[in-house]
Amino acid sequence: MKTYLDCIPCFFRQALKTSRIVTNDEALQEYILKQVSKLIGQLDLLKPPPYTAYKVYQLISKLTECEDPYLDIKKASNNLALKFYPKMKQLIKESPTPMETAIRLAIAGNIIDFGAGIEANKEIIEKSIKSSLQYKISKSVISKLQSSISKAENILYIGDNAGEIVFDKLLIEQILPRKITYVVRGKPIINDVTLVDAIDSGISSLVEVVENGSSAPGTILETCSPEFMQCYNDADLIIAKGQGNYETLNEERNKIFFLLKVKCAIVAEDTASEVGSSLIIRSEQ
Amino acid sequence: MKTYLDCIPCFFRQALKTSRIVTNDEALQEYILKQVSKLIGQLDLLKPPPYTAYKVYQLISKLTECEDPYLDIKKASNNLALKFYPKMKQLIKESPTPMETAIRLAIAGNIIDFGAGIEANKEIIEKSIKSSLQYKISKSVISKLQSSISKAENILYIGDNAGEIVFDKLLIEQILPRKITYVVRGKPIINDVTLVDAIDSGISSLVEVVENGSSAPGTILETCSPEFMQCYNDADLIIAKGQGNYETLNEERNKIFFLLKVKCAIVAEDTASEVGSSLIIRSEQ
Repeated sequence: MKTYLDCIPCFFRQALKTSRIVTNDEALQEYILKQVSKLIGQLDLLKPPPYTAYKVYQLISKLTECEDPYLDIKKASNNLALKFYPKMKQLIKESPTPMETAIRLAIAGNIIDFGAGIEANKEIIEKSIKSSLQYKISKSVISKLQSSISKAENILYIGDNAGEIVFDKLLIEQILPRKITYVVRGKPIINDVTLVDAIDSGISSLVEVVENGSSAPGTILETCSPEFMQCYNDADLIIAKGQGNYETLNEERNKIFFLLKVKCAIVAEDTASEVGSSLIIRSEQ
Repeated sequence: MKTYLDCIPCFFRQALKTSRIVTNDEALQEYILKQVSKLIGQLDLLKPPPYTAYKVYQLISKLTECEDPYLDIKKASNNLALKFYPKMKQLIKESPTPMETAIRLAIAGNIIDFGAGIEANKEIIEKSIKSSLQYKISKSVISKLQSSISKAENILYIGDNAGEIVFDKLLIEQILPRKITYVVRGKPIINDVTLVDAIDSGISSLVEVVENGSSAPGTILETCSPEFMQCYNDADLIIAKGQGNYETLNEERNKIFFLLKVKCAIVAEDTASEVGSSLIIRSEQ
């Protein structure tokens, strides 16, 4: 997906929010935003938004000497999501369509997205679960995803955010014992999943976890490691979570199902949906 | 009022919105936003937000060769507000406190503010009227304003937006026959009032109208004409409408009452109020 001009105010909003998490020094916050404005002067709209977000967050980390501004937030999100886990596990167990319920819950968890400006808390997550379980998703696309899962021999599951990863675990438990590899970012970026979240959520004790070698808030293939690219090319089914992975991979000709909550007007426009939608989007193949 | 870092995303939002009103050429819109990012690189946070907004809108007018992007919107706002006029006139007539009702309606009209990103329509205006009539405003400040009006010999009334000017007319009719001068901007900027709106609303046939010689969306004294400065210095009471006039004059030691609807989180913070508040603020004297 290309970058829209509407993403520009959003890059500044994200930069300001993150600067304030890292430092109380207003002069430094101002300096960061002015440096971001230099980046925006060189913006390439043909590249997806995470390409610029990547540069913005790298700049903030460099200027504040803080590699992981969202560390505490990520830990809190994992702990919060883990409190939901037993109830969700029960929901799936009691569901007449457990795989579909697990898919819907995995989508619900995508609400935990600090890049999109959502301060996910207990109430917001509860609302997202309720909404995702009821949202009208085409039966055809659900059955295509389920049938792809049941035929796949090598599934690559690209995670998105901390906290959300606990919701991914529920879906992965339904998919097992099929071979699944779970992908995390190579370095910290916003509240995106890294290796430590795979450990904290318990996913690393269920399936193989691979770092993608990149700190982009999405999957920019040219920034990913050869190890990840091998997994990406070998997979016969890819499940990619969230807006960032959608924005960076939606034009790829691979067998990808995107599972996401729509959290901004631009992704809503691009997917012909509305903010708040729970989507399964099948890539062009 | 100083510029807050939160104003930066807002400058880009306004620039994008205005660019889209003037042109469908996406390359030009992109060029405008990149030029705005250069301006932001030079931003002076100690100056009030309309100082930068002034530069942003001047840039857009220059690059698009369109002096008045909001011309049609301003005409539509005046026509819409004029439809409300008879009913509001009646409200004041039937009110046990007609001056207070007129003051509250003048504040209500300040909702018509395209700079603040509000697309004022019939419903939004009706809601604003209802809210302003009921809003808890300190009785002390209302009576101070009324008493200042009753003693004043030379009132300067600094207008803000098209459409809103019809609401100002109702208050001016209550204040007459005292001497009032109504101030409009010197050149078009956003949906701010200019001479043509004073004519269209009927204000110019009631009181003297003065252009301030500036196209800032507020009152930046150093950009105003000597004629305006004479009126400003001679007035023994100033009524200034809206956020832009508040942001640019709130540190002036003149006898100013600011009448405004709070439409953004930053002005809410600065005035220790909430978005949606109907405020009368007395300047430090």
